This record gives sequence, C-alpha cells and structure tokens, in this order.
Amino acid sequence: MYYFNSWNSEFKQPFGAIKTGEVMKVNFSSDKENVTIKFIIRRDFGLRHEFDMHPIEKGLYSSSVQFDVGHGLYFYYFEISEQSDWGLVKHYYGRSESGGEGVLYISEQDVRPFQVTVYDKDDKAPEWYRDAVFYQIFPDRFNNGNSDGKINAPKPNSFIYGSHQDQPMYVKEENGDIARWDFFGGNLKGITQKIPYLKELGVTAIYLNPIFSATSNHRYDTNDYLAIDTMLGSEVDFKELIDKLHENKMHLVLDGVFSHVGKDSRYFNLAGTFGSKEGATKTPKSPYFDWFKFTDYPNDYKSWWGIKDLPEIDKDNESFRNFIYGEKDSVLEKWNNFGIDGWRLDVADELPDSFIRGIRKNLNQYENMVLIGEVWEDASNKISYGQRRDYILGDSLHGCMNYPFRDLIIRYLNGTIPANEIAHQLLGLSENYPKDIFYNNLNNLGTHDTERILTMIQPKNNDNAVSLMFSLPGVPCIYYGDEAGLTGGKDPNNRKFFPWDNIDPTYYKQYQKWSNYRTENEVLRSGDFSTFYCGDLLGIIRYTENDYFVTLINPSDQEIRIDFNAISFLQNLGVQEELKAKLDGLQIEKNETLFFKK
Amino acid sequence: MYYFNSWNSEFKQPFGAIKTGEVMKVNFSSDKENVTIKFIIRRDFGLRHEFDMHPIEKGLYSSSVQFDVGHGLYFYYFEISEQSDWGLVKHYYGRSESGGEGVLYISEQDVRPFQVTVYDKDDKAPEWYRDAVFYQIFPDRFNNGNSDGKINAPKPNSFIYGSHQDQPMYVKEENGDIARWDFFGGNLKGITQKIPYLKELGVTAIYLNPIFSATSNHRYDTNDYLAIDTMLGSEVDFKELIDKLHENKMHLVLDGVFSHVGKDSRYFNLAGTFGSKEGATKTPKSPYFDWFKFTDYPNDYKSWWGIKDLPEIDKDNESFRNFIYGEKDSVLEKWNNFGIDGWRLDVADELPDSFIRGIRKNLNQYENMVLIGEVWEDASNKISYGQRRDYILGDSLHGCMNYPFRDLIIRYLNGTIPANEIAHQLLGLSENYPKDIFYNNLNNLGTHDTERILTMIQPKNNDNAVSLMFSLPGVPCIYYGDEAGLTGGKDPNNRKFFPWDNIDPTYYKQYQKWSNYRTENEVLRSGDFSTFYCGDLLGIIRYTENDYFVTLINPSDQEIRIDFNAISFLQNLGVQEELKAKLDGLQIEKNETLFFKK
Repeated sequence: MYYFNSWNSEFKQPFGAIKTGEVMKVNFSSDKENVTIKFIIRRDFGLRHEFDMHPIEKGLYSSSVQFDVGHGLYFYYFEISEQSDWGLVKHYYGRSESGGEGVLYISEQDVRPFQVTVYDKDDKAPEWYRDAVFYQIFPDRFNNGNSDGKINAPKPNSFIYGSHQDQPMYVKEENGDIARWDFFGGNLKGITQKIPYLKELGVTAIYLNPIFSATSNHRYDTNDYLAIDTMLGSEVDFKELIDKLHENKMHLVLDGVFSHVGKDSRYFNLAGTFGSKEGATKTPKSPYFDWFKFTDYPNDYKSWWGIKDLPEIDKDNESFRNFIYGEKDSVLEKWNNFGIDGWRLDVADELPDSFIRGIRKNLNQYENMVLIGEVWEDASNKISYGQRRDYILGDSLHGCMNYPFRDLIIRYLNGTIPANEIAHQLLGLSENYPKDIFYNNLNNLGTHDTERILTMIQPKNNDNAVSLMFSLPGVPCIYYGDEAGLTGGKDPNNRKFFPWDNIDPTYYKQYQKWSNYRTENEVLRSGDFSTFYCGDLLGIIRYTENDYFVTLINPSDQEIRIDFNAISFLQNLGVQEELKAKLDGLQIEKNETLFFKK
Repeated sequence: MYYFNSWNSEFKQPFGAIKTGEVMKVNFSSDKENVTIKFIIRRDFGLRHEFDMHPIEKGLYSSSVQFDVGHGLYFYYFEISEQSDWGLVKHYYGRSESGGEGVLYISEQDVRPFQVTVYDKDDKAPEWYRDAVFYQIFPDRFNNGNSDGKINAPKPNSFIYGSHQDQPMYVKEENGDIARWDFFGGNLKGITQKIPYLKELGVTAIYLNPIFSATSNHRYDTNDYLAIDTMLGSEVDFKELIDKLHENKMHLVLDGVFSHVGKDSRYFNLAGTFGSKEGATKTPKSPYFDWFKFTDYPNDYKSWWGIKDLPEIDKDNESFRNFIYGEKDSVLEKWNNFGIDGWRLDVADELPDSFIRGIRKNLNQYENMVLIGEVWEDASNKISYGQRRDYILGDSLHGCMNYPFRDLIIRYLNGTIPANEIAHQLLGLSENYPKDIFYNNLNNLGTHDTERILTMIQPKNNDNAVSLMFSLPGVPCIYYGDEAGLTGGKDPNNRKFFPWDNIDPTYYKQYQKWSNYRTENEVLRSGDFSTFYCGDLLGIIRYTENDYFVTLINPSDQEIRIDFNAISFLQNLGVQEELKAKLDGLQIEKNETLFFKK
C-alpha cells in the first residue's frame, strides 16, 4: 500500500550519508488516493521538522531537503494523513528491523526512523592507507630480533615464558590483581627482521600495539610517553624499523593511549619509581597533579574502569593536551617526526571530541598521516557517556576499527544469522557511515581484544572469513599469527607467541592470496559496495562504472547452485544484468568462496 | 639424697653412646643407708632388665653391663628399694628434663629414662668430608655460566624471572596446584665458573640440590635419574664441574631423591610425555608398573604426602632397588663413576633401613664416598612411620643434616632459650649420637627447606650464629647466599638468586674468617666437644689431649665479664683448670663472639 526503500535509488538519492549542504531527495509511493504525505525529520535529540511531499506522478510523492543546518544525525520517516469516515487519520512509515524497506506504524511515538548521517566534508584517508593490507602486531608476542635470542632489559619482578610455545597466562594474586607481568620478549628488531616475511604475505602496513615505556606486557599502562620501552629496544631500533618499512613501501601506525596512564608512570608515580618528590601522587606541586582526579589524595583516584593500575587522565586539562599534541616538544610531534604514518586512538569513545580533533589537527600538519579510532560499535550513531559522538563527521577520525564487520562475519559463518540478515546489516552500515569513513575503516577478523578467528569459526570456513574481510569496503587488517593458524580465546589466549616454526600453509595461503587480489584489483580497494543473497549464499559486489569484482560465500555444508531469479539484490544496480550471465547456474562448493571479475 | 649424672665421668663411663660389646659402667650415690639399688635397662620397645648395683665405697653403688645383645636404643634408670616402717618402698631415679643429672620418681611408669645408643661399629666419614667446609647450592638460583646470560633449554610452559633481583614466587592455579614452574636459569657451568669464589670463601665441598631431569625448579620431581636436566647443562658440563672441583681439592655431594618420582617421569609418564605406550600409567606391562601403588589404575595412586605431582615409589621393590643401586648400569653406578664424592638422601626417614644399607653398600665399593641423610630431628631416637630407625647405627648413613643444631642456635640467639638450656641440649645430643655420627653430621644455619638465618635472627647476631656452626662438632654447610647477606622466609623466599653484584662484605667476612679458622685448627674439626654457660654466655669447648679451642658467645645486648666461679661446666673436664686463667675476668662485648686457643 505504502512503500519507501532507503537503499533504492528510485526512492532515495543519494544513497547513505549526506554531506552538509547537500540535497536529499526522497520519493514515497502510495496506492491510496486522497492522502497527504509529509516528510518528517527529527534532529538528533532535537526538534521535529515537517516537509510537504508533492505528488510527481500517480501514487508517487516527492520531497527534496537541503541539509544545511549542521552536521550530525538526522532521523526521518513519513506521515500519511487520510480523511476517513470518522475524522482525519494518521499513519507513519518508518524503518523496518532489517533496514532498506520500511513498515507502517500506527503511533508516531513507536516509529523507528531511518537514519541519515550528515557529515561536514569528504575525508578520504591517505592513498597509502586506503590501498593498504594491514597487519596488527602485539609487540611482545611477535618476534625477538636478537640473534642470540636474548631478551632486552627484562623488567624487575616479571616473568619470561620458558618457551615460545607456552600458553600465555595471567599471574594473579588471590584477590585477582596482577602479581607479575609475563613476557615472551618480542621486540622492534624482531619486527624489522620479519619485514621480508610480511612483504611476502602481501602486507603493506603495520598497526603496532603500544610500544612506549610501560609496566605490563600490553603496554596500555604508559609510564613514559616519550620513551620506547627498553624491552622492545631503542629509538635507534625504532628508527630502523620505520626506515626499513618505508624502503619497502610499507607504513606504520602507532597505538596512542591517552585516556589513562600507568600508576607507576612518571606522571603518577605511585610506587615512587621516579623518586619520592616527582609525580602527582608525590606532591600536589607536580606539573602532572592536575591531570588526575583524586577523590582522596594521594590514595584514592579516578581510574579507568576502576582498574587502579590505570589512573585516568582528565583529557580536558590544557597542560595534558599540550603535552600530547601541542606544537612544541609534544608526544605526537616527537613520534611523528620519527616518520610514523599514523595513530590508532585507544578507547576513542572515552576521549572528548575536542581532544580527538586536536590530535587530528596536529596530524594534518604532516602529509599522509592517518588517524583511526578504537570504536566497537556502529560508530555513526554511537552514544558514549550520554553524548552522541561526532568523531566520524569530519576533522576528527579518518575511520574506526570495524568490529561490527567481524561480528557479522562470525555470526554468518557459524549459521547464527542467515545470509539475508548479514546482507541487510552490511548495507545498513554502509548507509549510516559517511562514505569515506566506511572506506577508511580498519576491518579485522580479530584483535588483541577478541578471540582469534580460528577459535570462533570452523577452520573449514576460514577462507570464507578471509574472503569477506578482503572483499568488504575498508582496509583489511590481519591480526598477527591468524595467517599462521594460531587459535585462542580472549586475552591472554589470543596473545600467543607467533609460531615461526609451525606456520600453517593452508591459512597462510588464504591470506596471501587475498592480499594479492586486493593489491591487483583496484575495484576491491575503492569500488562501490553492494550485496545480495540467495539462500545461504552471500554475495559481495564491488563495482565501478567499468569494473566489478563479485565474491560469493557459501558457509554451508552443501554446495549451492545459483538460480539467478532466486537472488535477492538489496539495491537496484546498473551492473545487475551484466552479472546475470555469470551468476546463473554457478555452483559454489560447500564451505567455499568463489569470485569472478569483469 | 640420691645422685647420678650421665655427663659426669665419675658416674658414667664411657660418655655417650656405646659400641656393641662395650661395657658401660655406672655409679649411683646415695646418702641413705639400708637401701638396695638396682640398675634397670629397658630395651627399645622391649623387655626390662634388672642388674644389681654393688656398694664400692660408702654411699656409692656401681654396676657394669656389657652391651652385647644387639645395636639399638636402650633406656636406663635406677630403682631404690628401702625398708620402711611400713613395708618395702621403691623409688626410681631417672633423667631430668634437661639431661645429665637425674631426678627422683615415685612411680616406675612415670620414669623418664636415660638413653644409651648402642651402635655396631665406628663409622668415621672420609677424611675429606670430616675436614670440609660445605656449601649448599640450589642450582637454579646460583649462577648462570653462559657468557651471554642465555638460559639453557627453558622448559615448555614455564616462566623465567625477568631479573635476578626478582622475589621468587609460586605461580598457582586457584586450587593451589602449581600452574607454571618459575626459573632463574642457574646452571652447572655457572657453578664451575664460581669455584674461585668458593675457594676464596674457604669452601672445600659442595652439596648440590637435585640436578637430574625434572619438571620443577627444585627438581625433587625426578623425570629421569640417568640424565642431567638440560636447563642445568650436559654431562660434559657436569664432568667439567667435577674435574675442576677435584683440581681445586674440592668435593661434590649429590642429592639422591629416591622416595618418589615426578608424575611426568619416564617411569610414571602421566601426561604421556614419554609416548603413549611407556611408563606405569600407560601400560601395566611397563617395567616400572610395580614401582608404584595404584589405588585405582591409572588415575589414583599413592603419592608423597598426597602431592599428586610426586607418585611414591615402593622402595621394597627389587627392580627399583636394582635400578638405583644395583651393580650394573644403576643410577648410583653411573654418577659415582663420574667421580662424585657422595650422596645426600632426601627424606631418609621415608626410605626403608634396608634400602639405605643397600645404597651404603654400593658406596662402600668406592673410596671415600660419603652418605648423608635428611633427618630433621635427633636422629638417634627418631621414630618414623611407627618404626625406630637404625640408620645411624652402622652400615647405613654416615651422618645426618643437623637441623636440631640450627633450631637451638636460633632460639638461643633470639633469647627464646637461655644459655643453660642450649648447653644442656647440645650435650644431650652429643650423648645420644654415636660419636662418629655426631662428628659426621652436616650442620647448617638454613637450607632450601628453612628460613634463611638472617631472617630468623637479628643481623647483629649473625657472627655468633656462624661462630656456633663452625665451633660445634660436625661439618659446617653454608647455604648459598647466606654469606652474601640474602634474607628470606620459607620457600620460595629462601630461594632467591645469588646477588652477585651485591655481596655484603660484613657477612662474607664472617663466613670466610670461620672457614679459615676451621681449616687452620685441627681441634675445631676433630677435637672433643663440651660446653658451659655463665649467665647469658655460652661456651663451646673443642679439645684434645694437647689442644683446645674455646668459643664464647654473647647474644645479649650487654657486655659480659666472666667470673670463673660462676661458670657452670656440664662436664668434669681435665682441661678446666687450664682454662681458668684465660676465662676469669674475660670481657665479651654485646652480640659478639670471642675465642681463644691454647
């Protein structure tokens, strides 16, 4: 009776997010006559705006609205007014559960609106980044570059694993506190040494977990922002790593952990490691005193998620901001000048928007630096600490770590959600994100904070997982060792040492193959995205005006033969007819990926 | 009224233990007339024997008994019969709480008897041993001899300490089981390397904690009796250690752990480390099957003190005995032929007497090998598992680890017991042990199983402790690192790594000084022992017919000036008068040791 589909260009243009100042055109169809259709837009946590829709042909109503009232989220739906036998009746047409098409609502307060994200400007990440195949390295667990296997500067009261094959474990006190930190002893030289390996795999960029002086093995408890952790090596080692990467046309992104510091940092200095007169806990005259929020000086203080090891920083503090990203002698300046290519911001949700913008502004001084944020959800509509975040709306993050993709891939490959659901969800995400952000996102199948992919899915579906990560928009990031066949649940089991003597060739080849496809096929890196499904089969289309690359995923234990007429395309694409000849009758073996190109 | 004193040669001869066949003469004095004195001897857990005592002068009764009815413990006291106005009355004279003199008992069943230990033959340990200054080394914690500091063959799923200064700790599961073993990585080469250091200190022999293949850092869980643990080094390293020690006129005693094995030993093989078809738990056809006592094969088995890591061996099993000390290809033969100089038997109390005699018989084939047992109490009258032990009565242990000395020294230096009590206790021990055994004992101020001496006493009394260990009969054994000033409570804190960069010169010099005194003064090594006290002051006398060495200990915080007449000598010694001139008026500063020689 009524119809609108935000994914269909006959009903909405342009697809997805809108740039500030752009006009959005929506068409609404009704086979009922004598109705009045209004286009309703609600501002995020704000006012309701009503626009008339004008009939442009029989049963089709249209409205065009210019979004020049600021960036942010807008939510829209349709109001249908109809004169009945018994007064005027109103219905509402809003978003369906799965997106795209909508459904009718009786009451306005129940309407689930469509989202339109309005962003300030295009924000294409540097070309090297958009084209990259990333590789995430947890430095303690990758490789020890000392020829004699010696471990650099082991920390007092810490443990070194007896062998690289050991299962990682936490050494805790009875009360659950960490008693000793555990190290395998990977270091920067070890990474430099493995550049040929990474190159062979097809990797073009590295995302490094924290490397600054810290107490723990993960080094998210920074003790000194201006020093490389001595276990990892020296500034000379770091410079050599950067130079060798650049010689090999590879890039490096560091982990910026600015939400909190280590309790034994030179800034907080709880145990007095930095002397009895320095640091916020030792004297209120410390230049760092104002960085922290003491509830009972010096023993009780605000800490990250209540973890006393990690005193929280007041990121609104000007001196801290200046220290991190100020122009002179700041943390960012120091490491940027080493030649790094970007930063990944830890817990971006917990950094004020203005803080992130300050960092971005700093990076903009350099050529081709990228800024990525750790965000776990659909970053377009994330609310954290009661605030809608605007970190993907311009002058802020280039992109986010794309955990929603990982989540969908795992659920789909395990049969928890059917092909139609993942297709809808993927297209929904692509609709919500500003296009550049969506293509700037760093996709993963797992990180140091999640279970490894091989522990989450059946090994026979690993190729499907890799295919999906490399076929979807965004920059794929391989978590070190996934390509070697490492398994493991959550921390610490996802942080095993890289099995250099036992790299599984099956998985390695899957990653290598797709790294090459990505490098060889421009369309996989920058082509538009759409998706379709056919029973259990999921199709990913990447296309440009003159090219396409179609990936077909069959996660089921039965072979699938495609009947073109049974395919559900979620969008009306120009390329569809061209695909017909190739898709119709195509057979995809069980648990296999098939792809074809133009 | 009545008097006897087992320490006084006017009342008992000879002093102390008796060799089988020897005659013991006792005199008993009574100022009452018309009494009949009987000398009563009870055999250990056996019959009561009654001997007449004959008056030899007014008020003095005598009896001489030949002990030719077998070795073992005998307990004696005196029965006094007196005709009263109202029938015959009996009293009994037995041992007092502190020994030496006796007290009167009304009822025979309450009598605490005097002990006389009857042993089969003199059993003087090899000369090198009797003259030695021992040094106990816990191999993982002493020194890493690899020039690059690398650790040999770290074990799978184990931890290496980050620094040599780390506090040792156990890494446990929530249920208290060990989750990972922790290592510092000391090795045999490290010991060889430190021979010059030990020589400089005055050490002439090493007692090494276990070195055979094992899972833990203490290696009491033997996995292979015929292999050196690869973390410690190779057989070549071991041979080099022995050869270098011998070149320096030093000797080596190994730790023999025969009561139990490791659960992952090649004999038990619980986790299948040695394959799925070998070892007692894998097949009842295993040659080792009969070594163990399974209560529910293969999962439930008898283990040492219920610790499942340590399956207990049936030491009566002939195949095990043959494996350990048989003539051909046995464990003892292998390592004896490397040139070692002796064994220390772990938990000797838990080894059958016949098993220990079998080991001793094996060692007797070699020249100058020593056999020491781990015994925690007065070994002369130890009852373990319901059995009086005869391991110090000949053809068995040469001596024991002398924990009673340590205990007395600590209690005396801390003021828990006064000087008179330690004097009585020391003389009591010397009375109970066969003389050779007493001089064969390995004395210590601490071991891997006790708190370190510096943690048990005030540092200002350390010189007193060292003086006592070196002045008392037996062979002094320095626990590695005590001389460097290491502190620490019980396991694992008593097992810190040797502080090579931080050796406290004060303690070092105390040990070095006394090592030299011992080496320079024959009388300190083989002289007879007696003791006296004077207020808080304890005197140790070592003497021969022509020589003496007197050590005076003042553990108190006041200086002591000796009034010779106030001294209580516990024995009537010929040397006493000669000492008068030296002792009278002598002043000993607070917390100090003074000694003088003939």
